[in-house]
Amino acid sequence: MNVALKENERIDDLHRKGYKLIQNPERFCFGIDAVLLSGYAKAKKDETVLDLCSGNGIIPILMEAKTECNQFVAVEIQSDNVDMARRSIRLNNLQDKICALEADVNSLEGIFKQGSFDVITCNPPYMPVGTGYINDYSPKAIARHEIMCNIQQIMRVSSKMLKYGGRMYMIHRPNRLADIFAGARENKLEPKSMKMVQSYINKEPSMVLLEFAKNGKPMLNVEAPLIIYMADGTYTKEVREIYYE
Amino acid sequence: MNVALKENERIDDLHRKGYKLIQNPERFCFGIDAVLLSGYAKAKKDETVLDLCSGNGIIPILMEAKTECNQFVAVEIQSDNVDMARRSIRLNNLQDKICALEADVNSLEGIFKQGSFDVITCNPPYMPVGTGYINDYSPKAIARHEIMCNIQQIMRVSSKMLKYGGRMYMIHRPNRLADIFAGARENKLEPKSMKMVQSYINKEPSMVLLEFAKNGKPMLNVEAPLIIYMADGTYTKEVREIYYE
Repeated sequence: MNVALKENERIDDLHRKGYKLIQNPERFCFGIDAVLLSGYAKAKKDETVLDLCSGNGIIPILMEAKTECNQFVAVEIQSDNVDMARRSIRLNNLQDKICALEADVNSLEGIFKQGSFDVITCNPPYMPVGTGYINDYSPKAIARHEIMCNIQQIMRVSSKMLKYGGRMYMIHRPNRLADIFAGARENKLEPKSMKMVQSYINKEPSMVLLEFAKNGKPMLNVEAPLIIYMADGTYTKEVREIYYE
Repeated sequence: MNVALKENERIDDLHRKGYKLIQNPERFCFGIDAVLLSGYAKAKKDETVLDLCSGNGIIPILMEAKTECNQFVAVEIQSDNVDMARRSIRLNNLQDKICALEADVNSLEGIFKQGSFDVITCNPPYMPVGTGYINDYSPKAIARHEIMCNIQQIMRVSSKMLKYGGRMYMIHRPNRLADIFAGARENKLEPKSMKMVQSYINKEPSMVLLEFAKNGKPMLNVEAPLIIYMADGTYTKEVREIYYE
């Protein structure tokens, strides 16, 4: 199926089942974090997955390719991103499996009943908003900074949307870990697994992958870190597998 | 100075300034965790350090050797451990610098005024008490399990004992991280630095080193993990430095 591209848009190959993605470098392009999250998150055949802060829809499109799950709802607040996600969904003929919805995370309780989802995925804006006056509402600023939603809000809404025992998967910056755990616990989302992501074996982690269980019991499984690059700058076997296998 | 040894006790060399430590394998012997915490914690010349769950006093004795700080209070609940710590303090002629106190962590507010300390160190019991009936009050059980004090209590007391802006250093198990962060935040102790400790470069972390700041602002600095062993089973350079240099 062909879909029309708009100004500055390009089509990228996702190296999965021939899927492609429409991106606009002026707005936001997905990075390795989205790929890692899609490899970390688990979703079974009959589960329904809600992706928050979905952007151009990269997470559900990759997860549809990697898992047996075939029911995804992608929520995104910026209408141009939703439009791009919808065209990518059509481009890959995934209309029956992925539904893109233009909505504010904080409005979801008015749309879905509580406990409607088995799994939530989220690659949210990483950076807190400074104490100063915000005057940058550009697409990139909204994707990077907690302008439209923050950790606290994401945790609150995720807890409402998840079934009892449901799972949430998130990728974030390690420097926000205390905020993340605090927001999770306050909303009955128990951190169950954590995997740090390091560029190189001797570097500090630059990202962290997390799994939460709604109403889960305390006890966090911290996995060996995921290393992105070998000493020579090429991808490690683990990352190559997440990207291509 | 010579001190008398009791049954089952032995004297171990600490490889620091000629210091020695009296230990009793029937009760508890310090492990690499105490050594790593003493290398991670920072204390300046004119600061006063409180060590909680001090056992045989290993942490303040090592820190006296490694830092310029010369005022330590070691708090321990088991009187036989306090007795051992006092004899080790005399053995190393550190009576003017380290004071060992037999006390329950939860009673410290009745002993010290709030905000009396610049720094707190703590290598606490790692394991939660099961839901069943506790019938093992052996020295080893008390050192390993949260029988006499738990994370929540340690955080509460530490917050009371620390000055505004004071630092707390702790080593613990990664699987307790959510409990630790929750207890810290509830008591105005902000997690500021974290360093995972892995046996080998490709293994999951087995310990975590943490620094908290009383009344600190959110933003956690996650450092590169500390690796204990090289592939051949010998200590890495970083660990050798903490032990011997």
